[in-house]
Order: sequence, then C-alpha cells, then structure tokens
Amino acid sequence: MSEKITGIAASDGIGIAKAYRLVKPDLTFDKQQVKDSESEIERLTQAVAAASDDLKAIRQNALKTLGEKEAEIFDAHLAILSDPEMLSQIKDVIQRKTVNAETGVTAVTDQFTKTLQAMDDNPYMQERATDVQDVAKRVLSHLLNRPLPNPALIHEPVIVIAHDLTPSDTAQMNKKYVKGFLMDLGGRTSHSAIMSRTLEIPAVVGTENATKLVQDNDTVILNGLDGFAVVSPDDHEREQYENEAKRYAAERREWRKLKAEPSVSADGKHFEIAANIGTPDDVAAVNSAGAEAVGLFRTEFLYMNSQQLPSEDAQFKAYKQVVEAMNGKPVVIRTMDIGGDKHLPYLPLPEEMNPFLGYRAIRISLDRQEIFRTQLRALLRASHYGNLRIMFPMIATLDEFRKAKQVVTEEKDNLIKSGIPVADDIQLGIMVEIPATAAFADQFAKEVDFFSIGTNDLIQYTFAADRGNDHVSYLYQPYNPALLRMIKRVIDAAHKEGKTAAMCGEMAGDAIAVPLLMGMGLDEYSMSATSILRVRSQMKHLDTRKLQNLIEPALNECTTNAEVKALVEKALA
Amino acid sequence: MSEKITGIAASDGIGIAKAYRLVKPDLTFDKQQVKDSESEIERLTQAVAAASDDLKAIRQNALKTLGEKEAEIFDAHLAILSDPEMLSQIKDVIQRKTVNAETGVTAVTDQFTKTLQAMDDNPYMQERATDVQDVAKRVLSHLLNRPLPNPALIHEPVIVIAHDLTPSDTAQMNKKYVKGFLMDLGGRTSHSAIMSRTLEIPAVVGTENATKLVQDNDTVILNGLDGFAVVSPDDHEREQYENEAKRYAAERREWRKLKAEPSVSADGKHFEIAANIGTPDDVAAVNSAGAEAVGLFRTEFLYMNSQQLPSEDAQFKAYKQVVEAMNGKPVVIRTMDIGGDKHLPYLPLPEEMNPFLGYRAIRISLDRQEIFRTQLRALLRASHYGNLRIMFPMIATLDEFRKAKQVVTEEKDNLIKSGIPVADDIQLGIMVEIPATAAFADQFAKEVDFFSIGTNDLIQYTFAADRGNDHVSYLYQPYNPALLRMIKRVIDAAHKEGKTAAMCGEMAGDAIAVPLLMGMGLDEYSMSATSILRVRSQMKHLDTRKLQNLIEPALNECTTNAEVKALVEKALA
Repeated sequence: MSEKITGIAASDGIGIAKAYRLVKPDLTFDKQQVKDSESEIERLTQAVAAASDDLKAIRQNALKTLGEKEAEIFDAHLAILSDPEMLSQIKDVIQRKTVNAETGVTAVTDQFTKTLQAMDDNPYMQERATDVQDVAKRVLSHLLNRPLPNPALIHEPVIVIAHDLTPSDTAQMNKKYVKGFLMDLGGRTSHSAIMSRTLEIPAVVGTENATKLVQDNDTVILNGLDGFAVVSPDDHEREQYENEAKRYAAERREWRKLKAEPSVSADGKHFEIAANIGTPDDVAAVNSAGAEAVGLFRTEFLYMNSQQLPSEDAQFKAYKQVVEAMNGKPVVIRTMDIGGDKHLPYLPLPEEMNPFLGYRAIRISLDRQEIFRTQLRALLRASHYGNLRIMFPMIATLDEFRKAKQVVTEEKDNLIKSGIPVADDIQLGIMVEIPATAAFADQFAKEVDFFSIGTNDLIQYTFAADRGNDHVSYLYQPYNPALLRMIKRVIDAAHKEGKTAAMCGEMAGDAIAVPLLMGMGLDEYSMSATSILRVRSQMKHLDTRKLQNLIEPALNECTTNAEVKALVEKALA
Repeated sequence: MSEKITGIAASDGIGIAKAYRLVKPDLTFDKQQVKDSESEIERLTQAVAAASDDLKAIRQNALKTLGEKEAEIFDAHLAILSDPEMLSQIKDVIQRKTVNAETGVTAVTDQFTKTLQAMDDNPYMQERATDVQDVAKRVLSHLLNRPLPNPALIHEPVIVIAHDLTPSDTAQMNKKYVKGFLMDLGGRTSHSAIMSRTLEIPAVVGTENATKLVQDNDTVILNGLDGFAVVSPDDHEREQYENEAKRYAAERREWRKLKAEPSVSADGKHFEIAANIGTPDDVAAVNSAGAEAVGLFRTEFLYMNSQQLPSEDAQFKAYKQVVEAMNGKPVVIRTMDIGGDKHLPYLPLPEEMNPFLGYRAIRISLDRQEIFRTQLRALLRASHYGNLRIMFPMIATLDEFRKAKQVVTEEKDNLIKSGIPVADDIQLGIMVEIPATAAFADQFAKEVDFFSIGTNDLIQYTFAADRGNDHVSYLYQPYNPALLRMIKRVIDAAHKEGKTAAMCGEMAGDAIAVPLLMGMGLDEYSMSATSILRVRSQMKHLDTRKLQNLIEPALNECTTNAEVKALVEKALA
C-alpha cells in the first residue's frame, strides 16, 4: 500500500527515486567496565581506520564535485583523526580506567573540545572544537555500528529525506543524483526551501514526520508542485506521476522558448523580470534564464566566505565581474545585510534577544562606517564597468537614507579627486522591508531613485511573525489585504515621482501574487533565476486591464488572506 | 568638584541622597592547596553563619515590607544553607583534597547545581539550582570578604546605582528609602524604567557608566525630569536642586487639585484618562490619581506569580476585585500576553530565535484553547460585577479576532446555560500593536468594539527595532510621521464606525505626543497612574482647535522624528 505524506510545496518539479534518509543515528551508549583492554584498543583502531576511510572517500568526492575549498574541511577532520596525542590519550584512558572504547573516545574528545571552546575569543579554535566533535561522532558511529549518513557518497538517484538540511549537508551532495528533498521542517522561505529552488531540485518541506514514515530505499514520488510525496507507489501511481513529470518537463520546454523574449502581458504592457543572486558564479544561470537585470545581488557571500573583512579590491573584482557579465543590463547591488541570522566569526556582534529586530544591515553600516566605506568604494569603482545601482537594506527612516547617501557622496568625491573613474549617474535605492518605510513611501520617493520591496522581511515585520518560526508560520500572509495595501502605497508613491517600484522577495515569483502585482503596476519582479521563465510565461497570458479590476475588491472588500487568494484563483480560472 | 552624569529621563522627580551601589562584587578566587584543613573548615563555618544571619535579616525585612510570598524565597535559601549533606560534602572535599574553603564550596555547590539542572523537565528543580548558586555566592562573599549588596537591608534614604535592576532586586527594597535610581542600562520603556514610574521613584537610565563613576556614600542629585545626575554637588548646586525639587513638588500639588475633575481641553473638549495596572493592588493608586477608567489591566501577574496555570476561580476573584473597586468605571482587561520575554516555569514554550516575533499572547491563546477558555470564563463571570471589557493582545489578522470572538461567544452561551450571570453588553476590543492591524483598521473597526493602540510594541514592529536593544534604540521614534500616520488611520477608522480609539503605550503620557494625539482626536489615554494628573493638567491648557492645525504639517510636511518634535515644541512654547 502506498502512503501519502503532505507538506508545503517548496520547489517546483516532480522527482521519483529511492529514499536516502539523511538522519543522524542515536550515538548514546553505556559506560562499561571492560577487563580486556587490548581488545577494546583493537576495536578503537579498527573504528579509527574505518572513519579515516570514510573521510578520504568523502574528501575525494567533495574535491571532484565541489572544489578545493569545500574539501578542506575533511582535511581538518583527517588531521584530527591521525593526531597521535589524542589517540594515545584515548588508549591510556581505556587501559587505566578499564572502560570500553566508546567511553575512552568520548572522555578524551570532550576534554579536547572543552579546551578549544575555552579559547572563546578565537573563532578558529571554536571551529576546531566543532571538528573534534564531528570526528568523535564518526568514530563512535563505527564503534556502535550505527552508520552516519554520508551525503557526499550518494552516487545513485535519490530523494533525500531529512529533518532539515544544513548548508554543510547540501555542500556535500552531488546535486546530479538528488531528485528531490522531503523534509520534516521548514516553510516556503526557510533556508532549505530557498536552496532547493536555487538548485532547481523539487522539494516538499514542513511534513513534520517524513523521517519517521519513510525507510531507506523506499521508492518515493516527490511532487514539489502540489506539496506532497507518495511512498511505495503502486504501478498505477508511478505511471501517473511519470506522466505528470513529463507534462511538467514539456511545460518547461515551452518556457525555455521565452528565454530571449521580453516580459510582456497579453495586452502588450512591458514588465521587467530580474534575478536575485548571491555570488558572481550565479550570473551564468541568470543569463541562461533570460533575466532582464539583476534585481538583487546579495553581497553577504563576500563577508561569509572570508576569514576577515573582505578588502576593497576583493569586493571590487566581484562587483566588476557581475556588472561586466550582465553586459550593460542593470545590476542592483545591496550593501551588506550582516546581523540578524547572519554572523561573521571575525566581526563580533552583540548577543541579542531578537536579532531580526536588532543591529543589522544598514544599522551596522552607518555605525561602523569603515566597513561601509570600503564596500562603497568597491561599488563606486565597479560602477565604471557597467550599469551598477546601489541599494541599502533595512532602511527605516529618511535620516538613515540621507546619512547613507551622504557617505556615498563623500566616497565618490574622494575617488574622483584621486583620478579613479566612477559612473556619474549611479542610482541609489532602498529596500522597502520595514513597515515604517512603506507607510512613508511618498516622502522617500522624493529622495531615492528606486524602491525594491523585500517581502520576506516586510511580511515578517508587518505581521510581527518570524518567518523561520513554525509556530507562527500561519501569519506568513502574502495576499492579506493589509499587506497588499502597503505594497500598493509603495508602487503609487514611486510612480507619482517617476521612480521605479521593484520587488525582490519570494512573493515576486508567486503565481497568485504576480497577477495582483501586475494589476497594481509593479514595474520589476526579481526572483531566483529558476522562476523567471515560468513567470514570463504567466505574464504573457494575463491582461492587465482585467487584473486592475481585481485590486479594489482585493484591498477593500476582501478581509482575509484566504479571500484574496480565492478571488485571484477565480479570476485566473 | 561635582561631576555630571547624563542619561535618559525615565521617571519624573528629583531625589537627593547618598549613593547605594547595587553592584555584584567579583567573586573569583584562586584554588589553593591548604595543609591546615581545620582552619579552612572553621572559616567555612563562620562564613555559613554570617550568610545565615544575612538571610534571616533579609527574610525578616521582606516579610515586613513585601509580604509572606516574597519572603519565601529566603526560606528556601536558608534551607539549603543548613542542608547537612551539602555541608559535610564541602568539609570532606576541604580535608581530602587539602584545598581552601572557597574551592570546597564551589566544587560541591557546582555539583549540586548540575544535578538539579540535569532534571530539565522539572521547573521546580531548575529554580532550586538557581537557589543553590545564590547561596554559594553569598557564602563565597563572606569567605572572600567582598560583601554582596543586600537591597533588603537599605534603611536610610539612598539613590540606588546599578547596572540594571531585576524584578527580584526591586522586590527586596523598602521603597520608602529609595529616592532615585541611576542605571547604566535601559531606555524609556525598559523594565526598570516602567517600574520606576509605577513606584513614583525618580529615575535616570542608560548612563552607560554610572556604576563606574559613583562610589558608595557619594552624595547624588538625581534629576529624573531632565535625565541627569550630579555626583558630589557643591553647596550651590545642592541648593539649586533642592529648590527645583520644591518647585516640582508644588507643581505636583497643583496637579493633585485636578484629581476629581474631568479631563478637558482649554476649549472644553472632553477626553478620558485611564490607568494601566498590573495587579488588583494597583487599583488604590488608580483611584487616588483620579483615573476615569482602567484602560489596560495586564493579566500576566496571575500567571507569573503562580506555580501552575491559575484556576478559573482565582482569576475570577482578581477580576471581580478590580471591577468592583472601580465602582462602575470601565475596566479593560487584556487576555494573557505570555511569551515574548515573559515565560512561565510550568508552561514550556518553544525556544525561539526572535521571541518578540514568536509564539505569544493571542497566538498561544488560540492554539492552547483550554488556557484561553479558563481565562474567558473567569472574565465573563466577573463581568456581572462591574463595567468589564475584554481586550485581545497581538491581533494581526481579522481571522484571529473572529476566532477569539467565537470562543467568547461559546463560553458565554455555556455559562448562561448553566445559570451563571454574565453581563450582556461586554465590549470586545483589540490591541493595535502590529502594523498589519493598523493598516487594516477600517475593516477591523466594523467588527471590534474598541481599539487600544499599544505603542510600545507598535513602534518596535513598525521600525523593526527591539525596544530593549540599546544598539537600535535610536529607532524608538514616537513622533516619526510614518508612525503618526498609522495612529491617525486607526483613530479615523474607529470614529468612522462610531467606535472608541484608545492608547495604552508609553506614548499616551508623553508631553510631546499628547498634543498630537489630542489634535488627531484620540479618545482615551491610558498610562501609569503616576502620569495621570500631569497629563490632565497639560490637557487643560491646550486648545484642540490649534492642535488640529499641527496634524497636516506633522504627518505630511515633516520628514523625521526630530522635525515633528521641533514643530510641537514650537507650538507649545
């Protein structure tokens, strides 16, 4: 009998493959007194050798599929595993205290970990502490014969079943074998959901209990379009979803034909579809998806993938690379949005009770201006090589925008005085992601060059609900008329001053939201590259004159998110 | 030479007294090998006896000034101190390991603490773990001869200097001796600031370094009106501020004359000034301040001061007591706002990354309906005894309000069927403290009976800035036109449907905000009892026809918080 598991559709597509459970085994054990220390030491030696074999294979695989940088972490693990000091201490504990190998490993590695952790002003040592724990777990897993999942060793098509995915889990996988993700946790905007869409791997998240219901090697149909999975399907079901997958593939082929076309509605109104990117490497996918611009280049990667604050030159090269690769198309680069849930080992930030309401983004930039000015100089220098626009995140007041603009002006003047070329018409815009900014959009529009509505945060603050918190996820309400009113206010304010209104949150690629946004006249839609052609295809079939008629009822007659959704669905039917 | 320390004016008034530093001493020490164990044990015995004397005095004082309940905590401490098992273990460690008494105390109490903490599903044991640590610190302080501050033993007039105050610090003080608070941390809306206003004790917070600059017994002038302190004043300064204090006292005497008068503007327009309260005991101060209503009765105290969920009867008694004491005047009771920064030992809530954006208030009530229904039954039963209104906190969507109202209706029907009397015209209102709700006030106004704008949270969410976080405190902007627009929208929406618009945040008693709120037509102003007569006096001198002229420039010409403040100050001058 097949079994259906429902969840949240997080990344489009249908995958059919065997289940691979990426679930950490229980590594608890009993401390035992063991007389025969020699045989315990022999068990230890074998477990260490097996762990070492694992790590070499994983390292090899990571090197091949992911590159040198990702492979380095496993070098660190191998080095720990072959540390003679640690091994001899473990053997010593086993002999002196006549305990089992598990107890010896845990006692000594815990001690090493504590010592490393105690150097709490040294981020390098903190990371080593994590490495020691990882290695200890791997050795224990062999001692206990409870294998750790090794996502790096996946070498046949699988659907990955997990509680949640960490960035390091996904870094280890060879994506060509991963046909889908099925997860207990998460929502549309969780890390793993966003990553699935970026990788174009179908995903269903928030199932609550998929890891309990699916066994290794069960056949799983993963339907990321409608948000469910079928475990152990019968032949009929299998055929049905194979056909569905074919139909979807055909649809995607249709979308591909729109690659070189502009984004135009059925009644001939032109919109701009842009891409959100995280690194210069993403630009290839942006161009191959036919994006008309980069609507959001998140610069955090420069700070996250570094051991210290990135230099002006390193930043300049990255920005230049992107604007050149986009070949004259607009590239909106957002200044750093560090803080919140993004921390840098080399930039200690205060412990905060509510980091999403804390010291982050432009608030840090205006306070720690040396960091901000370095980034701005890199941006200004890169502006000479293409169509670069600068955008400030988390602007809440006009004071903040004015201060940021002042700093740009100062750095620009300095560069020009030094004879360094800078584009002279660089647009300065802001993210609209804080309710105060939406409420004050008319005044902002007089001073900024463009708006980009960041709906992920805007929704979070407007409903006072952390989008990563499952207990309040019901308040992620992109169609709620209260939110739509704010969005319309921003669009109208921009147009009144002849400015552009863009959107770069998840909502910009949402099939229910797009018709509403077109009806309200939103100019630019920035989304993950994988959504661009689907949205362009949707726009082609929509008539803005009809959509405009939806806006008044959606904003002023509907009273809930569900009512607006029903209204749009009816209009699209 | 006198020294001036500036900070944030947090509670009105001027106090002059000796400094009492409520600062925890450094209790670190070196582990020492000591041959003469007998003399270490003698040191231990003396330290334990001295700690015991402290605790008995503190307990006695707490019993006298605070009551049985607050004194109980010290019984728990005394019980731990006389635990023969713990003491004999400490002596044993001192002898066996030939260490100093400090090392013995720490080794054994740490072990006890760990054992208790390990029972992490038992909140009672968790509290005992804290108690053991508190007792250990007290014994150590005597061993090291570094006295702990004992706020319970203050018995002469003092200005309390502290890093920050915890509720347990303030619970121990005899308020009649405390002439002022001077604190390193905090802002206008921090716990200690709110508490100072409730206690009518002048306070200056956010000085950053008062504890470093002031020594015990320094004379301190604390100016809570203008937000600074003068340390070691000369005779001239002392005289100046004694006169200032007299002037302020005279002003307060003028205010007292308004106690029985209505709150009326210079042009004869009537407003309602109400009080925010936290327990039934606060009602006396409310009546003596001449409040026209209780605008916000926070019911959290029932949950916080209890070892389990409070019973329907216990709640019923508390609510009945308040509505009866208010003698027919309206009493707005807010259903529980647990979660966020308020946790209950017996109600485990999920660990959250951003608790202010999390599972709290109505979100818990609608999810855990057994808790909600118990509270509603108590409220409905109490409604028979006075003018009781029910208010729901953290309403973000109409769905939530409709669900809450449905539950009220069900419980009301059940009570009536059981023959229990319930008032038949109970008003149901909501806090407007989430931006979505302000943006949608027109639709809400069709269904709710009243609004109460909770500005503390509304400002926090509108600017995406935690009001307890010093790094973003500059975004607490009550006069920012973006916020004022939201408030006006709420007031207009209420009036359009013939409903009442109230406000119960700090802003309702703010001397700059009040003229703006009167100009926008806000009906009811709810504040701490201590602010009522000051605001009534201010209203008496203001002409609403002139204030109305401020609104258009404040909302649509001013662009920053500072510009609006200047506009109002100019109009008031």
